[in-house]
Amino acid sequence: MTTIKDSVHDYIELDETAAALLDTPEMQRLRDVRQLSTVQLVYPSANHTRFEHSLGVYHLACEAVEKLEVEGELADRLRAAALVHDVGHGPFGHQTEAAIERHLGRHHDEIEWLLAETDLGSVLESQGLEPDAVAATVDGRGPLGELVSGALDVDRMDYLVRDAHHTGVPYGTIDHARLLYALRIVDGELALEEDTVATAESALIARTLMNATVYRHHVSRIAGALLDRASERLLADGHVSPERFARLTDAQLLATFADYEPTADVASRLRERRLYKRAIWARRRTVPDRFVGLEYDRVRSLEREIAAIAGVDPAVVVVDSPSEPSSPESRARIVVDGDVRRLEERSSLVAGLDACAREMWRLGVYAPDDELEAVGEAAASVLKIEV
Amino acid sequence: MTTIKDSVHDYIELDETAAALLDTPEMQRLRDVRQLSTVQLVYPSANHTRFEHSLGVYHLACEAVEKLEVEGELADRLRAAALVHDVGHGPFGHQTEAAIERHLGRHHDEIEWLLAETDLGSVLESQGLEPDAVAATVDGRGPLGELVSGALDVDRMDYLVRDAHHTGVPYGTIDHARLLYALRIVDGELALEEDTVATAESALIARTLMNATVYRHHVSRIAGALLDRASERLLADGHVSPERFARLTDAQLLATFADYEPTADVASRLRERRLYKRAIWARRRTVPDRFVGLEYDRVRSLEREIAAIAGVDPAVVVVDSPSEPSSPESRARIVVDGDVRRLEERSSLVAGLDACAREMWRLGVYAPDDELEAVGEAAASVLKIEV
Amino acid sequence: MTTIKDSVHDYIELDETAAALLDTPEMQRLRDVRQLSTVQLVYPSANHTRFEHSLGVYHLACEAVEKLEVEGELADRLRAAALVHDVGHGPFGHQTEAAIERHLGRHHDEIEWLLAETDLGSVLESQGLEPDAVAATVDGRGPLGELVSGALDVDRMDYLVRDAHHTGVPYGTIDHARLLYALRIVDGELALEEDTVATAESALIARTLMNATVYRHHVSRIAGALLDRASERLLADGHVSPERFARLTDAQLLATFADYEPTADVASRLRERRLYKRAIWARRRTVPDRFVGLEYDRVRSLEREIAAIAGVDPAVVVVDSPSEPSSPESRARIVVDGDVRRLEERSSLVAGLDACAREMWRLGVYAPDDELEAVGEAAASVLKIEV
Amino acid sequence: MTTIKDSVHDYIELDETAAALLDTPEMQRLRDVRQLSTVQLVYPSANHTRFEHSLGVYHLACEAVEKLEVEGELADRLRAAALVHDVGHGPFGHQTEAAIERHLGRHHDEIEWLLAETDLGSVLESQGLEPDAVAATVDGRGPLGELVSGALDVDRMDYLVRDAHHTGVPYGTIDHARLLYALRIVDGELALEEDTVATAESALIARTLMNATVYRHHVSRIAGALLDRASERLLADGHVSPERFARLTDAQLLATFADYEPTADVASRLRERRLYKRAIWARRRTVPDRFVGLEYDRVRSLEREIAAIAGVDPAVVVVDSPSEPSSPESRARIVVDGDVRRLEERSSLVAGLDACAREMWRLGVYAPDDELEAVGEAAASVLKIEV
Repeated sequence: MTTIKDSVHDYIELDETAAALLDTPEMQRLRDVRQLSTVQLVYPSANHTRFEHSLGVYHLACEAVEKLEVEGELADRLRAAALVHDVGHGPFGHQTEAAIERHLGRHHDEIEWLLAETDLGSVLESQGLEPDAVAATVDGRGPLGELVSGALDVDRMDYLVRDAHHTGVPYGTIDHARLLYALRIVDGELALEEDTVATAESALIARTLMNATVYRHHVSRIAGALLDRASERLLADGHVSPERFARLTDAQLLATFADYEPTADVASRLRERRLYKRAIWARRRTVPDRFVGLEYDRVRSLEREIAAIAGVDPAVVVVDSPSEPSSPESRARIVVDGDVRRLEERSSLVAGLDACAREMWRLGVYAPDDELEAVGEAAASVLKIEV
Repeated sequence: MTTIKDSVHDYIELDETAAALLDTPEMQRLRDVRQLSTVQLVYPSANHTRFEHSLGVYHLACEAVEKLEVEGELADRLRAAALVHDVGHGPFGHQTEAAIERHLGRHHDEIEWLLAETDLGSVLESQGLEPDAVAATVDGRGPLGELVSGALDVDRMDYLVRDAHHTGVPYGTIDHARLLYALRIVDGELALEEDTVATAESALIARTLMNATVYRHHVSRIAGALLDRASERLLADGHVSPERFARLTDAQLLATFADYEPTADVASRLRERRLYKRAIWARRRTVPDRFVGLEYDRVRSLEREIAAIAGVDPAVVVVDSPSEPSSPESRARIVVDGDVRRLEERSSLVAGLDACAREMWRLGVYAPDDELEAVGEAAASVLKIEV
Repeated sequence: MTTIKDSVHDYIELDETAAALLDTPEMQRLRDVRQLSTVQLVYPSANHTRFEHSLGVYHLACEAVEKLEVEGELADRLRAAALVHDVGHGPFGHQTEAAIERHLGRHHDEIEWLLAETDLGSVLESQGLEPDAVAATVDGRGPLGELVSGALDVDRMDYLVRDAHHTGVPYGTIDHARLLYALRIVDGELALEEDTVATAESALIARTLMNATVYRHHVSRIAGALLDRASERLLADGHVSPERFARLTDAQLLATFADYEPTADVASRLRERRLYKRAIWARRRTVPDRFVGLEYDRVRSLEREIAAIAGVDPAVVVVDSPSEPSSPESRARIVVDGDVRRLEERSSLVAGLDACAREMWRLGVYAPDDELEAVGEAAASVLKIEV
Repeated sequence: MTTIKDSVHDYIELDETAAALLDTPEMQRLRDVRQLSTVQLVYPSANHTRFEHSLGVYHLACEAVEKLEVEGELADRLRAAALVHDVGHGPFGHQTEAAIERHLGRHHDEIEWLLAETDLGSVLESQGLEPDAVAATVDGRGPLGELVSGALDVDRMDYLVRDAHHTGVPYGTIDHARLLYALRIVDGELALEEDTVATAESALIARTLMNATVYRHHVSRIAGALLDRASERLLADGHVSPERFARLTDAQLLATFADYEPTADVASRLRERRLYKRAIWARRRTVPDRFVGLEYDRVRSLEREIAAIAGVDPAVVVVDSPSEPSSPESRARIVVDGDVRRLEERSSLVAGLDACAREMWRLGVYAPDDELEAVGEAAASVLKIEV
């Protein structure tokens, strides 16, 4: 049995399937995709990769499968799915997700095509696993798929702790062993055992605090918005095919930007950390509902409108209006007085955390230093932001 | 300058006053008072003492004083008060607090008498500090006294992190440096600077989760109730004077129990971890308001009533009904859009955390194994607990 | 299965035997015996106990037994022996060991009598284990006894890491998982697998550095010498029987000292950290061989001789001359090119570490502040110390 | 003052000079140069960069400068030099160092040219610092230059701890605060104060153990040898200028390899972790002296000779024969009994650690799987390796 040393879980033992999957180019590529993409522009230590995270998720899946006494083919499938759950990610993970979805119509959790087209599929088959079943598990479907992608998944148990270790921000340090110990299978689905509301809440709290402090830091959001903009340009111009785009590493995407004149500026801005700044940074209550969670086309037309008023090139106006926050963990099933309930029904904290997340929501409009004032004024008037 | 190695803050540098205070028997006594008293019956690693905690609080006070640019006599006073803030604690800290208050009429934060009667006072004077001013600071009074005892005090910043380190429960690991960085003096009082609601909430969350998981664990509450019972007996019988009682160490109190027949059983129960069990463990909504947060005399009469119905010796019935939870942190001052507000006015989480704390509240009735059933039934009928 | 949270190993799962053993007064007593006895006078955070250490050793034994694929009665015996391995320790552990050996003729690893006379034995029998076989294992005898007490034992793997965690001194943080992974059974005995010389050396290094920095700190040695002196007085005077003495807790021993006039001074010195100071602190090369590792009677007569010359009461002169350092780890068996060798045969470091330990050796003569100079001069002349 | 959160040192405060230096492209480039280059192929969590390490070294320099009470221009210079000390590194740090030295005649510590040609120089000048003086300090020359590059430098204090944190291997976790506290200036040079031999040894030990376990792991050495080979080809063929080569990031170098047919194979081997294997892995005592620490031309001619005998393409034979190990730390100055000595004169461990390092030395010959046997036999005969 191969053993790998990990900075979070110490020694991780790999079974034969895992060792074979790791040797594929698809898994090795994840060494060059940072787990937190542009967060390292704010937290310089946040350079951990989706590769080490995948090992961590695999490790927790092994532990969960053992605690839950799942055996045989299902256990193999859950472990394999945990290991490959992130292979569908494009460069910079979530930050190119929207661009890929617009051009490929595919979410990163949909990996049937990847398993079919690459060595991953043949490795799985040679180990007696059906690629489509593994892909379904990665997407949270099928028996216990929620262990890999769901309200109580091992993905989140790993990333919260790992992101805390590598950023130095302690809020993510949940007690994942306590969560694992509390897992039960009730009527074929995962649930937390009796008397563990506080355990479940702790994971929800950790994510809420990490969102505020790390994941949605404005510097990372600005970098992400620039990445999305440049990615769209590359793809819309046909400079690179969406299929190839989706398989690049972080550095390969930056190199591709640098090689193409219309996106070269974004490459050097990201490399040298000379980002746009916030012209607008507006709380939820100051933003009319119709400007919350905008479709891509609507964003672009608003940007053009703002640019026209401000008298600047539309390329230097970036509107960033995320959807209202949601909280999958609050749907976690939990046994209370013998019945299975949703966490949100039993927890006095869920509503507060939801309000908290809403409180942290911001609409941003970004621009280079020189155009900041003009863009800010134009954006406030177009978006009817109450100042 | 003397330097001490600490498991939480690494090296702590002592100024001359601190070094002199540490050498007094009053400070040395704190080596034998566990920070978490009986929590070690649940978390066996929780053996850290009020001595090391005091050093930690002193260290954070030094850092805060430097950040806040407080200088001169006030800075000296704040540092000294931080170091001695726990000398007033009796054996087992909070768990004998009620007994001491009943017999001495004194809370552990009132230490004028201690400074007057012991070497602590003369050491302070020899360092140019007025004992009464230091005592007031320990009690949260006077200029910046809230830094030592208040909504944003360094006491809490140390104990949350230290208790997490020693129990292994990660929830208390707050980012105390971030809190310290956020401190400002506004109109002579402490406040958190603009845009730090999440930082303030994180401390509140940490305490709420530590309460649920560590501080109010039922085993520790049962042990505490037994300690209170036996302490009352010692004091009421005049077996030991309240003044001497208040100055015992943990082990000296157990030895005193063991030497006096009426309390000897409690000593051996604590030493051998053979505690009473829960006959009743009732949520807030099942308990009539009049039985919440009972006065001591009322508790004793209820115990007698229950014992009579159950047909057992009143000594084996323990009723434990804490007050409704409160949250001092929610009163923390914080700058929002230029104005100073209370955290509870600005945080969407405070109400949820309050509800959460209320949800975790329990009334307990405890008894030895053999009498558990009889006592449980009698207590349910006397206390009108809905089952 | 019961689970306990530990600050070092996180969750520790207890089997039925372990849970039953933990409930005995003998195991519970270890809650009140500090693992590092008087080291807390130097490192204030070092308050961890032999109870939590015993849980840790049990945990590592469980892991080792699983890796080595030991099963059945032998596995049960090894786990049980790991858990109870420290019950034979007197108050303040190693620091009263010599006094107990002088008066009881028994080393702390010899626990046949304890298992025979206490609940521990009956608990073991009820779980199908033979007390004498468990006692032999604790003493390092019988099949794989060296796993509990030997060159590669789990005792050391736990204490190095635990002592590092609680003192804050990082040197003890060995990679115990790597050591466990390297364990093999070769010809019925433990050995480290091929290519693990560096792994073995790391444990030896850790202990050498912890000796220098923590375990043999002069303040702790002075406190230990005072404890030995006062213990001898108690026992020689028959104030307490050696049997009872050996079963006291740390605090009970101090209380016993305090209650007996001839030892009361030592009790208050330890409680208030007013220790003797070093009148002599001599390196190995300056001390004649005949004064190294002295027998007890020889020590006392030297002290009387020194006192006579210095014109002081013999009670204020303490001579402390440890044996030459030895290194059990260097006898660890290790596979090299297919053959089993001793670590010392294969490691280039062992000789250096031995020299290093010899370099750190010191003969100490201690006395109160007032007599320091007189005692120092007299001692130098009696012990022929080259100055 | 800007504050940055670091996973190792928590908050790092930047002075104005540091903030300005960080904004240069030269410093930002270090975000894309991994601190441990190819070690991440063995320890997947080892993705930390020279950027965060530079911040850490700067932080320790600030602390050292304060402890040593260095002030004014010298203090500014030391801090600035600490921050920029790694800007001279090429892609993959030490692993392209030899190739760069062959073609540019420049070591990574020689950065006069970089400061002269880039923004770094003008930023330094605008802050009142002389670029050449800063460059000299980076190279260990001038007043207290040894603090940045020398036997007791802050570079090593940071990287040992940081590498431990990110690999999960604990051996590097030195007590850097203890080292900093022990620093003194004696006769204008750094020295460790009296009685700190063990402190100094601990750093030496940490590096020796990290060498064995992490830095010189064979997988990383093989990857490094392949990088050197391909780099030489790129440079010798003039495919890229040495000046440009030296300024690439890790990913840019791999992309450059991939774009040039003769080096494309190495790029894909590194990306997919399909490395050459060990045909020979020989201990020092089995290798004739004349084959230890070979010059580059000699290596290439030996490879051709081996290839000819094995009947394979010379491109698939890689000979890797490092110099004998050396230990700069053993030259550290330390005060012993009032005199300044070298650590190696006073430490019983240095000789052992040297022997240890020599014991870990290996000559490697690497080849692809298919040619492993033929290459191994030919190499053993050419290099006269005793088998």
